[in-house]
Amino acid sequence: MQTLGYAARSATEALASFRFDRREPRPDDVVLDVLYCGVCHTDLHIARNHAGYTRYPVVPGHEIVGRVTQVGSAVTGFKVGDTIGVGCMVDSCQHCNPCRQGDEQHCEQGPTFTYNAVDRHDGQPTYGGYSKQMVVSEKFVLRIPDGLHPAGVAPLLCAGITTWEPLHRWKAGPGKRVAVVGLGGLGHMALKLAKALGAEVTLFTRSPGKEADARRLGADHVVLSSDAGQMGAVAGHFDLIVDTVPYEHDVNPYLPTLRFNGTLVLVGYMGPLNTPVSAGALVFGRKAIAGSFIGGVAATQEMLDFCGEHGVVSDVEVIPIQQINQAYERLLKSDVKYRFVIDMASLQIEQA
Amino acid sequence: MQTLGYAARSATEALASFRFDRREPRPDDVVLDVLYCGVCHTDLHIARNHAGYTRYPVVPGHEIVGRVTQVGSAVTGFKVGDTIGVGCMVDSCQHCNPCRQGDEQHCEQGPTFTYNAVDRHDGQPTYGGYSKQMVVSEKFVLRIPDGLHPAGVAPLLCAGITTWEPLHRWKAGPGKRVAVVGLGGLGHMALKLAKALGAEVTLFTRSPGKEADARRLGADHVVLSSDAGQMGAVAGHFDLIVDTVPYEHDVNPYLPTLRFNGTLVLVGYMGPLNTPVSAGALVFGRKAIAGSFIGGVAATQEMLDFCGEHGVVSDVEVIPIQQINQAYERLLKSDVKYRFVIDMASLQIEQA
Ligand SMILES: [Zn+2]
Ligand SMILES: [Zn+2]
Ligand SMILES: [Zn+2]
Ligand SMILES: [Zn+2]
Repeated sequence: MQTLGYAARSATEALASFRFDRREPRPDDVVLDVLYCGVCHTDLHIARNHAGYTRYPVVPGHEIVGRVTQVGSAVTGFKVGDTIGVGCMVDSCQHCNPCRQGDEQHCEQGPTFTYNAVDRHDGQPTYGGYSKQMVVSEKFVLRIPDGLHPAGVAPLLCAGITTWEPLHRWKAGPGKRVAVVGLGGLGHMALKLAKALGAEVTLFTRSPGKEADARRLGADHVVLSSDAGQMGAVAGHFDLIVDTVPYEHDVNPYLPTLRFNGTLVLVGYMGPLNTPVSAGALVFGRKAIAGSFIGGVAATQEMLDFCGEHGVVSDVEVIPIQQINQAYERLLKSDVKYRFVIDMASLQIEQA
Repeated sequence: MQTLGYAARSATEALASFRFDRREPRPDDVVLDVLYCGVCHTDLHIARNHAGYTRYPVVPGHEIVGRVTQVGSAVTGFKVGDTIGVGCMVDSCQHCNPCRQGDEQHCEQGPTFTYNAVDRHDGQPTYGGYSKQMVVSEKFVLRIPDGLHPAGVAPLLCAGITTWEPLHRWKAGPGKRVAVVGLGGLGHMALKLAKALGAEVTLFTRSPGKEADARRLGADHVVLSSDAGQMGAVAGHFDLIVDTVPYEHDVNPYLPTLRFNGTLVLVGYMGPLNTPVSAGALVFGRKAIAGSFIGGVAATQEMLDFCGEHGVVSDVEVIPIQQINQAYERLLKSDVKYRFVIDMASLQIEQA
């Protein structure tokens, strides 16, 4: 089945329209028209080959909301017309320990990512959500709750689950004190979700100008991390810190703000931190630094259902696909509140 | 009550005999004759003021086994003649959250350490176990199980509980794979306890010569951390790594050997690690680096009872108190298998 998308053809070329084939649906496949696709930092990193493993042409996009147009013969959970979501993964081995525990993102054989990966059945490249249509096994398709605007839902599929996972695992809720480091796509979702879960929510930021927005998004308190007095005032305070900073940084200043048994969870950065950790800052108070990586299919569904009940969506700036290259430039300057989402109807003008 | 001990009078003087007063027993106090006292690295650090907060004269020693000679009017758990233990703490606030949860070592007001601290009731300095007699509230006194040699028990009060705590908290047992980094006083106890708990036990070491000893102490496997092939062979293997290294080091080489959801726990070092941690090494596989600090009174008793049931004691080299300064020099060279323990009967020749 031929479809249309936007692809990067090399690390230095702007994304442009790209005609390619989607596989014929297998018995367990759902075919969807993409309605909206969020723009994640990862899209930009992969499009420009920052990590060195991009296979061109690459069609990015893993925050996908669409509508079912066709289902395979074995599909039982979805029907034509359903509004559905697809996130960072489209397959996994399904039988290793993490997969059996619902942690497909930690599949021991590696999950099949939504783009820039290789389908584990036919060996063909996977192409993401910057496209008119997709074909995905129903095992990796999410139900989208009614009543949420689909553009605001799209970022839940990556930014939402990435921050939900540590909040849920470390039991953010009433009586728990949660801090969020960084106010970007991930950080703004962490504030909203932590607030909706009932936790006391604090934003750590380096920018005094973010206070009003942070409070609107759910922060009960805002702490300027560059202000020693403000940092001292929250010593020993937090049960959980969700660190969404997407670049090299130092976690040591945050460790003293953890309470006894508290944990700082890294979710937005994969490289080396820029300062060695103080062992004593972990030993005294039995603290921990942990990592968390997106989330499994069941957890993603649970997060979406929670967002449906609590009316949580991302704050988005909707753009046509033709503005994707400008959006990447603005993303590099953190000039977005708080997620670009592509309205895929804009692809129609490329069809001619 | 006047007693006799060994004290450091300054950072540069050798320890020498020291006559001093113990408080008159309060209603909840137990008075004991010290039988054996283990020699912990902390003793040396405090005696030589390595951390800068030593108050001289200081009588070190917090791995104490003794015999009850007198009990206060309110003491209910101990009687004259009982063999008892005293560890790193002799008091705490008793009403903060950590205290109420049995984590007195994390008392929000700070526990009262066994030496180089100030008694929270009378404001007098605390003096440790390198002494003939001690006076300790029964709340911080441990029962010593029958059938274990008291010299081998002494190190359980610090090295034992320090390694028991992470093994117990992270559920080392049958089916779990535990690695221990470093084979000193802490490391040899970690091997013994992990083995007795039923885990699969591995020692990471930089010294090929330690293999036979490690196996005797409980290691099922020994991995030379300087050998890339051996390290690669245990990639993704361990549920728990107990890192007992007491000096600056790099934890990054061990993180890839953790299994999905695995944790590396620092127990022997308080300073900064010497290399920044890789966030990606925690994010992928949902791993953590945590700290753990000795253990509470109830956990210490549980560990001692477990050691009684399983016949676990420390490998010790018993010395007279008069050799303590030479013992410190050997300790600095890790020249001990695996703990010096002072036979306090040797103090008698100082009495004349
Ligand atoms: Zn993403
Ligand atoms: Zn798998
Ligand atoms: Zn000690
Ligand atoms: Zn307390």
